[in-house]
Amino acid sequence: MSTELKWTKTDQLKPKPDETSLPFGRIFTDYMLKVTYDEGQGWSEPHILPYGPIELDPAAMVLHYGQTVFEGLKAYRTTDGHVQLFRPDENMKRMNRSHRRMSIPEFDEDRMLKALIELVNIEKDWVPSHEGTSLYIRPFVISTEANLAVHPSKSYEYYIILSPVGSYYPEGINPVKIQVEDEFTRAVKGGTGTAKTGGNYSAGYNAQEKASKSGHAQVLWLDAIEKQYIEEVGSMNVLFKIDGEIVTPALSGSILEGVTRKSILELLHSWDIPVLERKISIRELIQAQKDGTLEEAFGAGTAAVVSPIGSFTYKGESYQVQSGETGELTKKLYETITGIQTGKIEDPFDWTIKL
Amino acid sequence: MSTELKWTKTDQLKPKPDETSLPFGRIFTDYMLKVTYDEGQGWSEPHILPYGPIELDPAAMVLHYGQTVFEGLKAYRTTDGHVQLFRPDENMKRMNRSHRRMSIPEFDEDRMLKALIELVNIEKDWVPSHEGTSLYIRPFVISTEANLAVHPSKSYEYYIILSPVGSYYPEGINPVKIQVEDEFTRAVKGGTGTAKTGGNYSAGYNAQEKASKSGHAQVLWLDAIEKQYIEEVGSMNVLFKIDGEIVTPALSGSILEGVTRKSILELLHSWDIPVLERKISIRELIQAQKDGTLEEAFGAGTAAVVSPIGSFTYKGESYQVQSGETGELTKKLYETITGIQTGKIEDPFDWTIKL
Repeated sequence: MSTELKWTKTDQLKPKPDETSLPFGRIFTDYMLKVTYDEGQGWSEPHILPYGPIELDPAAMVLHYGQTVFEGLKAYRTTDGHVQLFRPDENMKRMNRSHRRMSIPEFDEDRMLKALIELVNIEKDWVPSHEGTSLYIRPFVISTEANLAVHPSKSYEYYIILSPVGSYYPEGINPVKIQVEDEFTRAVKGGTGTAKTGGNYSAGYNAQEKASKSGHAQVLWLDAIEKQYIEEVGSMNVLFKIDGEIVTPALSGSILEGVTRKSILELLHSWDIPVLERKISIRELIQAQKDGTLEEAFGAGTAAVVSPIGSFTYKGESYQVQSGETGELTKKLYETITGIQTGKIEDPFDWTIKL
Repeated sequence: MSTELKWTKTDQLKPKPDETSLPFGRIFTDYMLKVTYDEGQGWSEPHILPYGPIELDPAAMVLHYGQTVFEGLKAYRTTDGHVQLFRPDENMKRMNRSHRRMSIPEFDEDRMLKALIELVNIEKDWVPSHEGTSLYIRPFVISTEANLAVHPSKSYEYYIILSPVGSYYPEGINPVKIQVEDEFTRAVKGGTGTAKTGGNYSAGYNAQEKASKSGHAQVLWLDAIEKQYIEEVGSMNVLFKIDGEIVTPALSGSILEGVTRKSILELLHSWDIPVLERKISIRELIQAQKDGTLEEAFGAGTAAVVSPIGSFTYKGESYQVQSGETGELTKKLYETITGIQTGKIEDPFDWTIKL
């Protein structure tokens, strides 16, 4: 393996884990990528170095004021043994959008994508091939200035770490029960909901714990203002099949613009299935369930790809989505996207990049 | 100096800085305090150790999902040379409230306060005595589990770092111009606005940068829902004197419960000045300014104590608060609180703890 990047090698390579029992995000590869930013100097050349601890001053801003951004994407082992990425350019674009919202200096997307590809190339042997597995790629940027004043940092560190993963949900593609949250809020227009930043995620822990206690796998978030309109499920976008049409919340300024969501909408378009991106209220969803027109419901995101919703609970009342089984379209979408990702199905959209 | 706590000593003490030109939060003392939490074991015994880098796994949750909490309080040098704290028990209580909102295990407030006092005691010589200076105390807790799954961490580290500081605002007690923000949002009911957690602070950077560009020192936040009701100014609570009465936004679920705010309300009560904690809209504020009944306006927080507002800008229009000078009551509140903090004025409320 060779690279044009600066590469500090280790001679202590880790043993590869058992591919049949991979957890999510707890095993990491031998190397990580690091880029630094200093005011006046811009982003440095990328450096590949052994995976290991990050040293931060106790006053480093990331530990106090949450100025962080991250991304999540995956490398897949194809059926013929190659490794490929799924729409990584979309993640780089979104990362820069998140940077803008969090007052972090933007970077050169092409250059950062090239560096990401080089890192994955070096760590190719870590991409698992067992059904449902992949190499999860986590780029993230942290603010490192040692200063307790509340203002944007003057220095940053950007890292990419890699983790061979199994399914995000132990349930796999099986339907989950979700809890409609009507007290806690994830995000609001004008806030940080459209950015992939840390604070959005821990803000949901209270609600997630409440949902878990009542036997629900995920939280369905409502809008912060009227507590009526559906936003996201857990940390995924959410889609419904109602009377033959797909309805999904429009990107209104508090919802993350998911790459899986985007891909699903493009797929549905190519299949001539009508898609409506609009406001959808919890009342409308309940009415559709009562009328029998709520045919399918599922979350969509990089970690789980597609996660079918078997039932939802709102104000103590539970509503089953049809038979409670994974819907046909949900299954077809899952199989098509994972099929394209793993090279089982031809990629007519040029979504994949072969390494 | 002695302590009952575990104490790792350094023999390389730093030189003390020039007290007449202290920045805010960029100089740190010789020691910090550390307490760790591990699932099943609870919070460990506190350990005082030399101020130095924190080592984190690159997958440590704080770097990804923003599960953090912090506090801010000060130790003051009294006119007779002692050192005292101002209502530190309030900060410990609020910290536990923040822990609950962020799904971080609570700690024993008394034990943590005792440890804080021991640390400040050891670092007593770092408490400056020059006018307007103090030793800023920053307790903070970070989530340290190395795991990319989105859920509460199973391990935490709690630190206290200390920084001798001058005035937070270079303007000191001089009035500042503020910008009423009507696009970006700081917090919403059901969100994390009442918790002192990182994400709330970096969420405001975009608006702060916009305000700075137009020559404003601070942002005045409106409520996220109707964009009508006043919430906070910068990272301080805000109070207005209108027609002889003090009006301040009620703690409605998106506003931080400030210790300085609370102390001011208690002082005003003791002075028989009427205080109204209620909703106040930007329209009402503008009307009061036009009618000439808006007598004073100021922010209140630990860092700046009291920060007078000279004028505010809303939708391009600027409104001066009376003569644009620091109001009489604002000045009296500043002098009384800093007087109590530094022992110049008797403390009839038992707010101070002498070390």
